[in-house]
Amino acid sequence: MQVIETPQAMQDFARDARAQGRSIGLVPTMGYFHEGHLSLMRASAAENDITITSLFVNPTQFGAHEDLDKYPRDVERDCDLARGAGVDIMFTPTNEMMYPPGYRTYIRVEEWSDMLCGVTRPIHFRGVATVCCKLFNICIPRRAYFGLKDAQQCLIIKKMVEDLNLDVEIKPMPLVREADGLAMSSRNVYLSEAERRDALRISQALFMARDMIAAGETSAAAIRGAMRDHIEQSPLAKIDYIETVDSRTLASADTVKPGVLIAAAVFFGPTRLIDNIIVEG
Amino acid sequence: MQVIETPQAMQDFARDARAQGRSIGLVPTMGYFHEGHLSLMRASAAENDITITSLFVNPTQFGAHEDLDKYPRDVERDCDLARGAGVDIMFTPTNEMMYPPGYRTYIRVEEWSDMLCGVTRPIHFRGVATVCCKLFNICIPRRAYFGLKDAQQCLIIKKMVEDLNLDVEIKPMPLVREADGLAMSSRNVYLSEAERRDALRISQALFMARDMIAAGETSAAAIRGAMRDHIEQSPLAKIDYIETVDSRTLASADTVKPGVLIAAAVFFGPTRLIDNIIVEG
Repeated sequence: MQVIETPQAMQDFARDARAQGRSIGLVPTMGYFHEGHLSLMRASAAENDITITSLFVNPTQFGAHEDLDKYPRDVERDCDLARGAGVDIMFTPTNEMMYPPGYRTYIRVEEWSDMLCGVTRPIHFRGVATVCCKLFNICIPRRAYFGLKDAQQCLIIKKMVEDLNLDVEIKPMPLVREADGLAMSSRNVYLSEAERRDALRISQALFMARDMIAAGETSAAAIRGAMRDHIEQSPLAKIDYIETVDSRTLASADTVKPGVLIAAAVFFGPTRLIDNIIVEG
Repeated sequence: MQVIETPQAMQDFARDARAQGRSIGLVPTMGYFHEGHLSLMRASAAENDITITSLFVNPTQFGAHEDLDKYPRDVERDCDLARGAGVDIMFTPTNEMMYPPGYRTYIRVEEWSDMLCGVTRPIHFRGVATVCCKLFNICIPRRAYFGLKDAQQCLIIKKMVEDLNLDVEIKPMPLVREADGLAMSSRNVYLSEAERRDALRISQALFMARDMIAAGETSAAAIRGAMRDHIEQSPLAKIDYIETVDSRTLASADTVKPGVLIAAAVFFGPTRLIDNIIVEG
């Protein structure tokens, strides 16, 4: 596995590879890999001639009071894990390379960036869309892989690609959970033992929603209410949102049916966790 | 010369051409060609294996009360002129192809889009940046050609390309004037005979500024004042702005020296004309 640091060297490599007819798969990450990341890398390695993983804790997607500075980092361990997952190139630019002095260009997927996670994190998806467009231009992938834990992110990136005519296929991949159900996240490392235990209520609430739907419940309000009750039984949990929306348009869904995204964001202390399910047909 | 209408067919063509190692030059236009456009096409034809001219009157760069509906169009004549200038492909998408229902992604080059022409036209450069990024992704050019009459546009596109790591070289090309000095513009066709005569005061004011600088004047305020006096001698002229700024940073320039952009925008009736010079070394 090769490590490439500068955008210019990465783009030169990618351009040459594409000119030789080799397909590139890209897995954009902020590092501190867990099984969710590795599942994306393996999927890319299986489908493409070359797999690039970018490791960049993107400052433009963090708000002023968020966890940019303490976001967990372990590049050496990440390199070992990526190598094992079949990654060919690790792209590790610095902030200064990605956003040099005088940087001033931003991409917004309007309306969709202001909903769900965008309410609490108003600049988040602008930063995500911008850095993903940059990474697509630098790495010139044929396919790019994103985990469905960030369902809104997947939708926004897919929309940006479609709207800006970017020549890349977005592959949304299944959310990966811990054995007890908690959605895997690099941020789980922030949780105290008690928070880690109570955080389980998020996935439990989503599985409960799934059971209610299987039993015939169609009222989105009833489902959201039951989820809220379950999560609020933990005194450590502070709900940011519980929403039911169409998974293709983000339009609010009053009736739960196949294709509806049930998404939750919950704070445990300063740590904000998200999780979701999409109602199956 | 071939005419291609859909973004998908254009992108497929461009991807194949690039895979064969053929270089593409792109001349983005809104049509109604004059010698300024043709000079860009000839420059592209001389430097690239394939020259694409896009002809698209981009609705997202027009404000609600601007001239989108009456913008002059003559596709048949444009095709003849482009063929004569060495263009290989004319790309002519419709509004619905470029902005299908649900379109919601926009690019902004911040601060620079709010200055000079951006004061009177607040969404203009957002539309320009967005459509140019789309055209670059669709046509995959090695080089793209823009006229320096739109100096602010050139700077903003160049900045977007740099910031978003787009793999295209922006080639700013000299402004082209009518024999009497008026900057060529598709919008000149809107002018009445009296307006056409008085519009000459814009280029005259710029040439006067150049003469004052050659004679030793360095005060930007003195130069702007003299230009204003000259243009305001026409009762038909309504000055939008006369500005002196650094041509690389758009920072306001109090002292005129090499590299300063002297730019003017003047209304004649509803028609808004722009012109500029860059002070030479």
